[in-house]
Amino acid sequence: TEDKDNAAREVENPLPGFRLSAVLRESARDKTIFLHGQVSGDDEAKEDAVVILERAPFQAESVSDLLGKNPPMTLQLKNDIYGVYHLSPPPELNEVKATVIRPATEKHIKKYLRQEVYLIQESGEDYKNITLPFIQAQSFSIQWVYNILEKKAEADRIVYENADPENGFVLLPDFKWNQKQVEDLYLIAICHKRGIKSLRDLTADHLPLLRNIMKEGKEAILKRFGLQGNQLRIYLHYQPSYYHLHVHFTALGHDAPGTTVERAHLLNDVIQNIEMDSRYYETRTLTYALREDEALLKSFKDAGKF
Amino acid sequence: TEDKDNAAREVENPLPGFRLSAVLRESARDKTIFLHGQVSGDDEAKEDAVVILERAPFQAESVSDLLGKNPPMTLQLKNDIYGVYHLSPPPELNEVKATVIRPATEKHIKKYLRQEVYLIQESGEDYKNITLPFIQAQSFSIQWVYNILEKKAEADRIVYENADPENGFVLLPDFKWNQKQVEDLYLIAICHKRGIKSLRDLTADHLPLLRNIMKEGKEAILKRFGLQGNQLRIYLHYQPSYYHLHVHFTALGHDAPGTTVERAHLLNDVIQNIEMDSRYYETRTLTYALREDEALLKSFKDAGKF
Repeated sequence: TEDKDNAAREVENPLPGFRLSAVLRESARDKTIFLHGQVSGDDEAKEDAVVILERAPFQAESVSDLLGKNPPMTLQLKNDIYGVYHLSPPPELNEVKATVIRPATEKHIKKYLRQEVYLIQESGEDYKNITLPFIQAQSFSIQWVYNILEKKAEADRIVYENADPENGFVLLPDFKWNQKQVEDLYLIAICHKRGIKSLRDLTADHLPLLRNIMKEGKEAILKRFGLQGNQLRIYLHYQPSYYHLHVHFTALGHDAPGTTVERAHLLNDVIQNIEMDSRYYETRTLTYALREDEALLKSFKDAGKF
Repeated sequence: TEDKDNAAREVENPLPGFRLSAVLRESARDKTIFLHGQVSGDDEAKEDAVVILERAPFQAESVSDLLGKNPPMTLQLKNDIYGVYHLSPPPELNEVKATVIRPATEKHIKKYLRQEVYLIQESGEDYKNITLPFIQAQSFSIQWVYNILEKKAEADRIVYENADPENGFVLLPDFKWNQKQVEDLYLIAICHKRGIKSLRDLTADHLPLLRNIMKEGKEAILKRFGLQGNQLRIYLHYQPSYYHLHVHFTALGHDAPGTTVERAHLLNDVIQNIEMDSRYYETRTLTYALREDEALLKSFKDAGKF
């Protein structure tokens, strides 16, 4: 192998001598597959690689052009007005996106491996005895959240702010949303007040904050993006991915990840529950899913609760 | 056009002279697109057609064979150990499923047209004044449910039964599940007692029934399919698709339709809420989504509530 043609070779062939070790995960719905394989490294040694393949979405123009050219279609079944056919479009309409991680470590391989998930029933006592000590011991860094609140980062991305330190918040687009179309709109409201870790900490004291987020968040999204409040799903996650209170705003028609009943809590329900009982979220048994490899699941196991 | 070669032509070319009228719906996540087009009918007249295209899931064996042959890959971006490439697999690995509906009526076209969805906040009063009269006026037939409960239909599909007329139920696979793999397990528990229309009718009187469904449903699924109770998502829909109380059991790892927070209610939460307040579901404001063309939305509009 000559160094000088190394770059060109890499472009053409990132997976020399690929041999499959395992299928890590696949989704028939999403048309994705995650593979672990071995490839030939630079010095002939074997090297681990993770390859993620994903089929391309259809483009209306190119597929309607194709159908207009009467492409061969193989009949699979026909019943009255319904027919099912197979069609093999030309290669340029079948681009597959391949993400290659190489060399891949054990950690990469584990990250993409399909994990079993289990439901946890976390009582108020379990929260105090297991989850809260776990959160405190992990000391997750939320400096990046403080940077946003203090305008040290992402200041130009802020869509709306209520600057009140007690009942105010900042609203900005989530990184998952490219802001090009409202169909998959996704924004996050982050409260200014520090120390509210999650749903579990909310009491009647926080009703003004929660009502501000609900009302002003809707107004700001209508004004900037033209989506009405009744076209928005407004919710919190439990467990959240970081322990500083934040609220998700997604387009109702968008099947965003993390909107399932075992993770999402509608802000409207949260407000109603606290109005009914200020200690609702302190005492309530909350249900959520944990992956087999998550550290919190280990804490529940160690406590004999799983 | 000769009649005798008509059958063969249909196989090869179900969409002669296809011209796109509209993209009805598309999903970048699912890699599907729904098209409305016009085609040439038998007597040269134009005819409406609906075409649904869906890309095939990957098959591990064929894609790993392909990668082993060092196919050309075009570099899109590279950063440290991560690279993104485009790959054009040969036609036999790119089969597209085309469902053709022809001739398509206005109703077919409307069925597949993407509809706006709106959130409804239904108070206890709204239920009594708008939703309940709507349900009663529709007189949806649930004879098919009674046929199951009376063993006049699907008796061989029953997985478990508690025959108690007050607190019993029948558990059977949902039609969406082919029963071939537990990854997308989906069963339904239908209560024997008649007249419980939905969540709204549940009170402390129904706790024995709900607890039976929870406990015995889990046990039956563990015994027959080997999935543990903490690997199941057990929930009710509000609004339900039919007004006879039933409970959904899906594999927790399966992203089944109707599991989002604005439609699904965990049975565990329902039991807790009724234990706390027997009238919880009579009085509570419940949030759910309705499509623009749904008749219930019109009832809310007519009542000036939307």
